Amino acid sequence: MKLQAALLLAAATIVTPAWAQSSPPKPAAPATVVEDFKPSSLNQPGKLYPQVNSQGYARFRIEAPEAKAVKVSLGLGGRGGTVLTKAPDGSWMGTSEGPLDEGFHYYHVTIDGGVFNDPGAQNFYGSVRWESGIEIPAHDADFYALKNVPHGNVAQVLFPSPSTGTPRRAFVYTPPGYAKDAGTRYPVLYLQHGWGEDETAWANQGHANLIMDNLIAAGKTRPFIIVMTYGMTNEVRPGQPGGLAAFNIKPFQTVLLDELIPYVDGNFRTLADPAHRAMAGLSMGGFETKLIAPKHLDTFNYIGLFSGGTVSLEDVNTTPGYRDKVKMTFVSFGSRELERGGGGPPGGPRVDPRVNAKALKDAGIPSAFYVSQDTAHEFQTWRRSLREFAPMLFRD
Amino acid sequence: MKLQAALLLAAATIVTPAWAQSSPPKPAAPATVVEDFKPSSLNQPGKLYPQVNSQGYARFRIEAPEAKAVKVSLGLGGRGGTVLTKAPDGSWMGTSEGPLDEGFHYYHVTIDGGVFNDPGAQNFYGSVRWESGIEIPAHDADFYALKNVPHGNVAQVLFPSPSTGTPRRAFVYTPPGYAKDAGTRYPVLYLQHGWGEDETAWANQGHANLIMDNLIAAGKTRPFIIVMTYGMTNEVRPGQPGGLAAFNIKPFQTVLLDELIPYVDGNFRTLADPAHRAMAGLSMGGFETKLIAPKHLDTFNYIGLFSGGTVSLEDVNTTPGYRDKVKMTFVSFGSRELERGGGGPPGGPRVDPRVNAKALKDAGIPSAFYVSQDTAHEFQTWRRSLREFAPMLFRD
Repeated sequence: MKLQAALLLAAATIVTPAWAQSSPPKPAAPATVVEDFKPSSLNQPGKLYPQVNSQGYARFRIEAPEAKAVKVSLGLGGRGGTVLTKAPDGSWMGTSEGPLDEGFHYYHVTIDGGVFNDPGAQNFYGSVRWESGIEIPAHDADFYALKNVPHGNVAQVLFPSPSTGTPRRAFVYTPPGYAKDAGTRYPVLYLQHGWGEDETAWANQGHANLIMDNLIAAGKTRPFIIVMTYGMTNEVRPGQPGGLAAFNIKPFQTVLLDELIPYVDGNFRTLADPAHRAMAGLSMGGFETKLIAPKHLDTFNYIGLFSGGTVSLEDVNTTPGYRDKVKMTFVSFGSRELERGGGGPPGGPRVDPRVNAKALKDAGIPSAFYVSQDTAHEFQTWRRSLREFAPMLFRD
Repeated sequence: MKLQAALLLAAATIVTPAWAQSSPPKPAAPATVVEDFKPSSLNQPGKLYPQVNSQGYARFRIEAPEAKAVKVSLGLGGRGGTVLTKAPDGSWMGTSEGPLDEGFHYYHVTIDGGVFNDPGAQNFYGSVRWESGIEIPAHDADFYALKNVPHGNVAQVLFPSPSTGTPRRAFVYTPPGYAKDAGTRYPVLYLQHGWGEDETAWANQGHANLIMDNLIAAGKTRPFIIVMTYGMTNEVRPGQPGGLAAFNIKPFQTVLLDELIPYVDGNFRTLADPAHRAMAGLSMGGFETKLIAPKHLDTFNYIGLFSGGTVSLEDVNTTPGYRDKVKMTFVSFGSRELERGGGGPPGGPRVDPRVNAKALKDAGIPSAFYVSQDTAHEFQTWRRSLREFAPMLFRD
């Protein structure tokens, strides 16, 4: 939700575009809340709250017996979250007013005017802070479930970065078998997080490694490496990122192209050519992808934007080499983003992404457009986007 | 602090042993608090509080304008932490009554009777929950600093575990150069966390990877692999660990010996023999090491106990093969633990560890005893213990 807020903020002068539905449908709250609540799968060990039920309601319980007011930021759109009330045992309890969308949500708790995390939930970096996380079980959760299949590794690497003056962190997913097949080289996807997140997001919130493990076990994708690093290198000072409208891509581009890619190619068994290198990202990460990849087609031949702008036929026609070199242009959104009129590039004209996607298809540009049903500008959209994008990569 | 509490709880029937100093010296609080406070190095991005000064005082600031009472659990021993008072701007502020020991400390905040984390600090898993962390700059912090030296990786691996019915997580440190020297095989240290912690502790709180990177860059240790996994497999249910006194080592021993070690030897370039395998741990991890390693000397020839019990000459003499096979028995404590009379094995006779160490030396057993000056049952003791232990390993 807050990621979308950031994008909209950057495009603050743009009103809701004409193609957006004027009255987006809201899911009707079921008449009865089914009392089959279970602890969220993201709870800290042994913690019974927060809970979720089979309809997607969330129930919170916070112990703060002397507090005056406790509120949870998560709730239905526009209603300001879930207000908790004092239970007979002195704890504060409350249930969301309606079902939440399937998948992962960030939230926090306001206690007597201060913002804290729910001690029952694990923390995930988003909104330039470690937030609480809750998981509403999805009907399609199987594709990112931890299963008894061969698993790849997610390695923290610290790579030299002369441009920023400090070793920097990246996480590198290597597919199952990487360690054993010492003769095999792999393509690489550079995969970026969104605004306010960091290089931990795609593995922690996104389960990128489990998505890949499951796709590979099912024979649905070629095994490849995924590299994830910090993309908010344009920050004014730590935690004070620059706005997206006046985004300076240069510092991050330098880290990515001049420092990280040579390090990865030097330290992992990669296929180090543009035909075996992709760049993609979610939200701000998609925005970064569009700023970098089309201008560096001798580095990347695959491009993916997940809720992070679109590619128009004009973009293709005015970018030298795009038509010849790009093997796949992938654009995706959550259906609720399209309903709400999201999807345009920050600061730019807000064209319906479906129109752009159709124009690329009609012109014979290798491209794909994916809509995640009944999800918004959140991680369930991006988990599904990775599941759809991965099998389209490196098909040589 | 809480780790020690757990160990003492398990040995609740044992009173303070005679060899402990009856009146442990407390550092005298300086007359004047120097106003050179800076944000703790473990703060979340852009957060100005908590702060530390050059004397080791900690200063906290919590925003909760409508709260009745705010307290921080961290403070001088026995004084119940630091009580915050309302500042003119509506925030709650307070400074520890005296300097804290150098290094890492867990803490949390009690707001109107509820336990929360400090939104300014990063979180670290300890006490069976994600706690806030603060770092008091140490005079010897250089040995775990992030420097421009070659860095190893820390890989998350998910290994099959038929005994527990789910893939399990371990972190594997591989030294700099591991990826490039495809012909080299490495020894392995299995390194365990303490009670209430998990497999993230040694890298996050302990900086085990940076300690190794710096030792290797200085030519002080042979490069080796470190494997860290979850050791509280004896829990009754998640988050409800069994007591240490009636500790059942079997479930963890099965995971370690029958599942993790074969996985590591099958997937990393190890020297897979007892002469190139060590086991060590901190606190409960040392306790586990002592329960497992001496009975499996065809698996491990190096043993390290960091604030986790001692090895007596009787232990050596009554353990088949110990005298012939163990190449190093390393025992360490923080000096404050010795002052306070800690150091005995949970539930067992509380012998002064210095007496046991001297007996081993006198009998010619390859052994080392290390005391971390002015630190307690906390991570600074264990960071230093690893720095001392690593160069003694695998010297063939």
